[in-house]
Amino acid sequence: MSKIVSGFSKFSKNEKIDWLTNNFTLSGNKSRKILAQYLNVDKTLQQLHDDFIENTISNFYMPYGIAPNFIINSKEYAIPMAIEESSVVAAASLVAKFWSDKGGFKAEVLNTVKVGQVHFMYKGTPLELKDYFKNKKEQLLKITDPITKNMRKRGGGILEIELRDKTLELADYYQLHVTFETKDSMGANFINSCLEAIAEEFKKGDIQIVMSILSNYVPNCVVKAEVSCEVEKLHPTNGALFAEKMEQAVAIANVEPHRAVTHNKGVMNGIDAVVIATGNDFRAIEAGVHAYASKSGKYKSLTTCNVKEGIFTFSIEVPLALGTVGGLTSTHPLSKLSLEILDQPSAKELMQIIAVAGLAQNYAALRALTTTGIQEGHMKMHLVNILNQLQATQEEKIIVTKALKGKVVSFSGVADVLKEIRA
Amino acid sequence: MSKIVSGFSKFSKNEKIDWLTNNFTLSGNKSRKILAQYLNVDKTLQQLHDDFIENTISNFYMPYGIAPNFIINSKEYAIPMAIEESSVVAAASLVAKFWSDKGGFKAEVLNTVKVGQVHFMYKGTPLELKDYFKNKKEQLLKITDPITKNMRKRGGGILEIELRDKTLELADYYQLHVTFETKDSMGANFINSCLEAIAEEFKKGDIQIVMSILSNYVPNCVVKAEVSCEVEKLHPTNGALFAEKMEQAVAIANVEPHRAVTHNKGVMNGIDAVVIATGNDFRAIEAGVHAYASKSGKYKSLTTCNVKEGIFTFSIEVPLALGTVGGLTSTHPLSKLSLEILDQPSAKELMQIIAVAGLAQNYAALRALTTTGIQEGHMKMHLVNILNQLQATQEEKIIVTKALKGKVVSFSGVADVLKEIRA
Repeated sequence: MSKIVSGFSKFSKNEKIDWLTNNFTLSGNKSRKILAQYLNVDKTLQQLHDDFIENTISNFYMPYGIAPNFIINSKEYAIPMAIEESSVVAAASLVAKFWSDKGGFKAEVLNTVKVGQVHFMYKGTPLELKDYFKNKKEQLLKITDPITKNMRKRGGGILEIELRDKTLELADYYQLHVTFETKDSMGANFINSCLEAIAEEFKKGDIQIVMSILSNYVPNCVVKAEVSCEVEKLHPTNGALFAEKMEQAVAIANVEPHRAVTHNKGVMNGIDAVVIATGNDFRAIEAGVHAYASKSGKYKSLTTCNVKEGIFTFSIEVPLALGTVGGLTSTHPLSKLSLEILDQPSAKELMQIIAVAGLAQNYAALRALTTTGIQEGHMKMHLVNILNQLQATQEEKIIVTKALKGKVVSFSGVADVLKEIRA
Repeated sequence: MSKIVSGFSKFSKNEKIDWLTNNFTLSGNKSRKILAQYLNVDKTLQQLHDDFIENTISNFYMPYGIAPNFIINSKEYAIPMAIEESSVVAAASLVAKFWSDKGGFKAEVLNTVKVGQVHFMYKGTPLELKDYFKNKKEQLLKITDPITKNMRKRGGGILEIELRDKTLELADYYQLHVTFETKDSMGANFINSCLEAIAEEFKKGDIQIVMSILSNYVPNCVVKAEVSCEVEKLHPTNGALFAEKMEQAVAIANVEPHRAVTHNKGVMNGIDAVVIATGNDFRAIEAGVHAYASKSGKYKSLTTCNVKEGIFTFSIEVPLALGTVGGLTSTHPLSKLSLEILDQPSAKELMQIIAVAGLAQNYAALRALTTTGIQEGHMKMHLVNILNQLQATQEEKIIVTKALKGKVVSFSGVADVLKEIRA
């Protein structure tokens, strides 16, 4: 029997769950119980979360943890992180503590320009188009007045509208390339609304609009963060060797894309965890950051590392288009709380905090990789998860952990040890 | 007073929460209540989630929704998605339904090779190193036997170990480039354990290991998905124009990185939602996918679109290193349920399903962008969220929705209308 359904989005939540579990799970009762156990007992709160997207049937728990001891521009932070990977919060906490007595992190926003484009096709002469644009430009700005009114009050708005000729790359293709300042909002809805109004006003018989949309590529919305200290302070016995290995690790990421991708993936472990916890859109951030890493034509490291005159410096430069007002930041109760924990940062301050979270994560990864190897820490957390999965008692956990100390942890290995104990 | 804390990870959960809320929130009681309202009433279940990461203090709810009506390789699916963005599940559902009576989606895994590398420095002659590697290779494989035993039973293991000379790019830098088949596991722990064992065996006086780590760049672990139909079936009145605009939209993404980044971000909305719902690591997927999009030296579209002899074809090619066993896939109860809903897919099948989710999302985005514009749909969901935030009653919601029909939705605009109604 076909499982194609009509009008699903109009079903009640229970109808959706019944249809799903009856058609796609082995035991309807069992799976309904799993979905139900994650629903909030507070019906109003659950309704709020249900309405965030369409066809919500439950809440997916992402662990919400806290990494204390960050000092950023001389201010103390405990950074909330929403992330499922076992080592991320632990790594952030360790690195934060390590740098807390070495001056902490310094961070600086380099610029905050957002971008949107009206993409269109035009077969006429470029000169005529140029004239049309020149004469129309004032009106294009004016038409957005009602949309930009509140943003202008807050010091933002449209910065510039440019006509760009892209016909060398694609026949008949031109853009209106529009730059924005969106202050404390991420600005997606604002930018798209402006662009659609501009396109509507700009189009005419021989100007065929293809689409109007913001860009998540924001190479002029960049924040820099760094740590530095004397080389000797890096390591209890051999700071110089430690510094050399860190430099090598970054140098390798700059020449080898296979490594750079994973290097930056580690950076994003830290960045995304805070992006999610503060109600921002991690796909937008990911896309912008990785494109930035590839902007030279070769995919490279986001972080840099160098030693000069006995001073070790480790830094990051990343584009981050973030909001601290609007969207989920002000509707998801835990996002709101995350921003409160961070002392209600402006978007610029949040850029700094998140860049620091990314830098710290990369520092932790490189430190582990170039010293003990990455598996020691991973395995510790991995073991806890496997033990839970095998429903080990507290006593069994202690015995197995001792038995596997220093060994490679695998599911089957743990199961074997547990079997022995239980026998 | 300093907020730097020692031994935080050893605090009990309540001690952590008390320390955090007393030091970093305005009202300890209020913020403790917010954190507590998200804790599961089932203490054993909550403990399971607490143990996933360090310093867990609550659960961050990601809406868990369902997109029905997908047909992939003639099989019907309802796809679970964990995502906070309002339009993603709605878009997936619409596109799935649209293609369900046009043959559905076709998907095919092109290859499944994973990669890991031992990065090392060596100052001796390349020839001596080559000989050393040649003589050592057998032993390198042998040393991993205990680690690869179970994987080999499942048909996976180490495919090849290559010595790579990278000294032209960085002085003294070489790699052992290792390829793996990891079957239904994502393989991160497996690969890293193999690499660390290989490095330990390989190192000697003049071979200085820098690090050993898997790569998230997997250009040989790629899946392809596509839809196709006669052009006339694309649109009730003008299929040809619709097809032309879709082609233009993809062509634009291929020549303009500002557009490509957002184009692919839309793809990732679909991909990540299923990646998260199935307990996979979205940072790993994001990094690999965006690097793949930039592999030509220019950041480009992941999807392609063409019309040939009246047939419209829309397709995607993406690298996806996924697991359906191990890690969170088998410990997070909702991830397990997601896999059950998807009929316990192999990793290859999951690659196909997730590629389809990405393709569907891009189709929905381009369809909206090239026809009504992106804001119409966004605004509808955005309005619901704003109304909830302003605690509008059901009656107020209906009136405001009517009043703002076709208008630009902003927080202040909605607030103004509500104020009028309430006055």
